Amino acid sequence: MNFPSKLIEDAVNEVSKLPGIGKKTALRLVLHLLKQDEKNTRTLASSLLDLRTKITYCKECHNISDHEQCNICASHKRDRSLLCIVEDTPDVLAIENTSQYQGLYHVLGGVISPIEGIGPSELRIDSLVKRIPESGIKEVILALSPTMEGDTTAFYITKKLKEYNIKVSTIARGIPIGGELEYTDEITLGRSILSRTNYEV
Amino acid sequence: MNFPSKLIEDAVNEVSKLPGIGKKTALRLVLHLLKQDEKNTRTLASSLLDLRTKITYCKECHNISDHEQCNICASHKRDRSLLCIVEDTPDVLAIENTSQYQGLYHVLGGVISPIEGIGPSELRIDSLVKRIPESGIKEVILALSPTMEGDTTAFYITKKLKEYNIKVSTIARGIPIGGELEYTDEITLGRSILSRTNYEV
Repeated sequence: MNFPSKLIEDAVNEVSKLPGIGKKTALRLVLHLLKQDEKNTRTLASSLLDLRTKITYCKECHNISDHEQCNICASHKRDRSLLCIVEDTPDVLAIENTSQYQGLYHVLGGVISPIEGIGPSELRIDSLVKRIPESGIKEVILALSPTMEGDTTAFYITKKLKEYNIKVSTIARGIPIGGELEYTDEITLGRSILSRTNYEV
Repeated sequence: MNFPSKLIEDAVNEVSKLPGIGKKTALRLVLHLLKQDEKNTRTLASSLLDLRTKITYCKECHNISDHEQCNICASHKRDRSLLCIVEDTPDVLAIENTSQYQGLYHVLGGVISPIEGIGPSELRIDSLVKRIPESGIKEVILALSPTMEGDTTAFYITKKLKEYNIKVSTIARGIPIGGELEYTDEITLGRSILSRTNYEV
């Protein structure tokens, strides 16, 4: 693309570094900002900078937080005997949106991935193990993606938690609600038969 | 959505003001920035601010430019007898990408739209009329969108240019290359018959 201005080119290059945004979309966004009030661009830029420089993480669950302790960890309404292990913040948001879980969280910050050079020490697994004694946690729910990396992480954590005599469970794998049986892949279908649940009417 | 942090919420709100970006996409972009180096966010923010504060417009064609005169207006390779009238910068980029046009441009900065309160005086029509005498321009090509507003603007400009005895043309309307005749709307099809061209082999 031939840009009429170096400033436009720079802005388009920076915006198109964001995931899922190509040069054409970036140009559209940049020209949109140019048409808007200068104030809007200032607010956008400063909110991004504030986010990056001022953000803190909860010292207990490691989720993004405005305070030392996040709202979930600080809440008296949460069930403190349940701890859900997730990969990252979007997973916490996704589970919170279901309104089906009232326990606490622990954000690992990733999953074990030898290919990307992420070992257990890069994740918050040590702080998880430290958190268990004297916490009153009775059950740990593993809510990790059903990938090779997720499974490896789940296996590693389960082994680490063995000595604490707490229940370790994993979220159910099966056919999604609304999913058609004949179009489900055989691994999911096979697993859904193995982990069948009682049908209660 | 329940955000774990006010900083995230602010950033998501600002990013989702951009066209075509909803709250979910905004959250994904914002969390991506959080995972990246702080430097990346700084560069992004400052390129947007620079764009908004430092940008200038060519004093001849009013296109976005880094200098008083844009590269196209300054180029000695362009045909100075042709002037293409467009609504805005993206149109210039689109026409430049075709490599089929070697003349100059004039960017109106919009089209006449009584509903949005944009009259001829809000556009760069006066500067267009001033530009015509002693410029050597022999033909003005109207490259405006085939909408009610585009047609009104084309009509207004044509009337304004009448006294200067120059040719005024408009880009061809017809069936797009690769378009199927039977699926073309009847107005386009009708117009393509009326403005048929000689078939030369």
